[in-house]
Amino acid sequence: MRGVMLYGPRDVRVEERPDPAIIEPTDAIIRLSATCVCGSDLWPYRGIERISEPTPMGHEYVGVVEEIGSAVRTIKPGQFVVGSFFASDNTCPICQAGYQSRCVHAQPIGAIGAQAQFARIPLADGTLVATPDIPPGDLIPSLLAASDVLGTGWFGAVAAEAGPSKTVAVVGDGAVGLLAILAARQLGAERIIAMSRHESRQRLAREFGATDIVTERGDEGVARIKDMTGGLGAHSVIEAVGTQESMMQAIRSTRSGGHIGYVGVSHGVELPGEELFFAEVHLLGGPAPVRRFLPELVDLIWTRKINPGKVFDLDLPLEQAAEGYRAMDQRRAIKTLLRP
Amino acid sequence: MRGVMLYGPRDVRVEERPDPAIIEPTDAIIRLSATCVCGSDLWPYRGIERISEPTPMGHEYVGVVEEIGSAVRTIKPGQFVVGSFFASDNTCPICQAGYQSRCVHAQPIGAIGAQAQFARIPLADGTLVATPDIPPGDLIPSLLAASDVLGTGWFGAVAAEAGPSKTVAVVGDGAVGLLAILAARQLGAERIIAMSRHESRQRLAREFGATDIVTERGDEGVARIKDMTGGLGAHSVIEAVGTQESMMQAIRSTRSGGHIGYVGVSHGVELPGEELFFAEVHLLGGPAPVRRFLPELVDLIWTRKINPGKVFDLDLPLEQAAEGYRAMDQRRAIKTLLRP
Repeated sequence: MRGVMLYGPRDVRVEERPDPAIIEPTDAIIRLSATCVCGSDLWPYRGIERISEPTPMGHEYVGVVEEIGSAVRTIKPGQFVVGSFFASDNTCPICQAGYQSRCVHAQPIGAIGAQAQFARIPLADGTLVATPDIPPGDLIPSLLAASDVLGTGWFGAVAAEAGPSKTVAVVGDGAVGLLAILAARQLGAERIIAMSRHESRQRLAREFGATDIVTERGDEGVARIKDMTGGLGAHSVIEAVGTQESMMQAIRSTRSGGHIGYVGVSHGVELPGEELFFAEVHLLGGPAPVRRFLPELVDLIWTRKINPGKVFDLDLPLEQAAEGYRAMDQRRAIKTLLRP
Repeated sequence: MRGVMLYGPRDVRVEERPDPAIIEPTDAIIRLSATCVCGSDLWPYRGIERISEPTPMGHEYVGVVEEIGSAVRTIKPGQFVVGSFFASDNTCPICQAGYQSRCVHAQPIGAIGAQAQFARIPLADGTLVATPDIPPGDLIPSLLAASDVLGTGWFGAVAAEAGPSKTVAVVGDGAVGLLAILAARQLGAERIIAMSRHESRQRLAREFGATDIVTERGDEGVARIKDMTGGLGAHSVIEAVGTQESMMQAIRSTRSGGHIGYVGVSHGVELPGEELFFAEVHLLGGPAPVRRFLPELVDLIWTRKINPGKVFDLDLPLEQAAEGYRAMDQRRAIKTLLRP
């Protein structure tokens, strides 16, 4: 099959890779209808995360089940499925509590590489959610978004306790930040402040439900949020970047007693204990337990109540993956969809 | 009046200080029935927190209202009252949300110095809670504990979401850690693991409701907690020390999706972002909003359902404050009560 490999910083190649096969009886093989490039793929693409050898890429996927292992019970060949970027058994105590990305048997799909024609998905019954039917083509981008960026933005909003009567601020205007806005809107937030200085992203932010835009960053951004909230800070802040600056901006923008959901993969962050202590905010973050939200998200997409697929502003054949990465690296594209 | 002053590391003196007077119309003056030495007083006592001049000490207090300002409406002279170590208006949005220690008008009682015969309490209506009557003498230690250590341990347990069917671990066996055990028990926790290697404190931990004792610390302590919880970690962990080691012990002892309530005043702590991200635990801490819990705590004490006053294992006249500090510094005493 054809699949995307990263050879080194900014060296993306599409090449022949072995067709995946069932290894464990709980596996399924899916034929991908679509996959995409994640903001987190840019960390190794930019060489900030080192790789020691050519590495398969990708962890977001939707497609049709081709084959199942002998122990798979609920997922059937021919079904159209969406899954999370972490495989999970969905039965252990951590999964049952809703933290499937930290399942005691969790396996990162990134290690398998879903930017390809086929993928082996471990723990198929626990990981995959089937759609009611084969979806019409125009729903595929939105279903693909549910696999990570929508689920991640949704978790950020839930962790930040976005909801009725709340003022929510979102730090980061990538696909996850934008979909956190959509999530906060769906969860009923009263006011949603997008922190963005890119006009095209501001437009999408407003379309997804942002009521206000703040273009300032850092201390000035914090001061603007305070100004807009009677000096108190937002009730809920979603952090969707993962840097020291963005985390501190999130912490300082939150009122005491408020909630921060941080979903940007943390890189080089050190949180100062004393400041955090006196900030007295709730913190919850990590790899989003997308599986918890998938049934609800698939339903919202299937019934056309939300259209998260709009974050894909570049749609390329898989063979042009290198251009897809380049466009995101240069911020010419928010998110690239790849068609195998 | 007589009051405690700190002149420098381990230099505690009881001396004449000016009698307090009403400054703001919202103030009350109380005559203290009892006050005490806090674990947090040991930071400046040991010279870890620097002081630049002789400083009045103490922030825990119970006593009888002597005088009120012209704007005080609910608190009356002659009432016996308990208050938090932060004065708060109890009406601002932060107070209304239950975070009175971060009230927009918060004032630390520590700056006033409650180890004295009298104290001026700002924002009396918001800060003070009157008991149903003048208490019998044997309830005074417990009511005094409610002013800080009980309320702080209680907040730790609430922040850690201790409750039915939960396994709770407590890091720190000072008065706050011990009372966090009492709180977890009251909140219905199924299993409460005290982390302590001091026999007298272990005894009190068991009396307050600990079901298990772990004597190991650091990585070994974490491994023991994992062993006792099917490899997952505790649902709820209360951190009551404030050091890097104790915070990391708390984070690593908590299962993904679990909750940490941290109430040890943070000193020199830096939380590693990446580890915290992949730990995927809830974090909430800070100066406890004791005022939120005071009515319930006073009721539990008044009806003799709890006896938190047992943490006072040294009872001295105010004049012997220096010995009270010394005994705590040397860990000969858990907590010293001072009688003005």
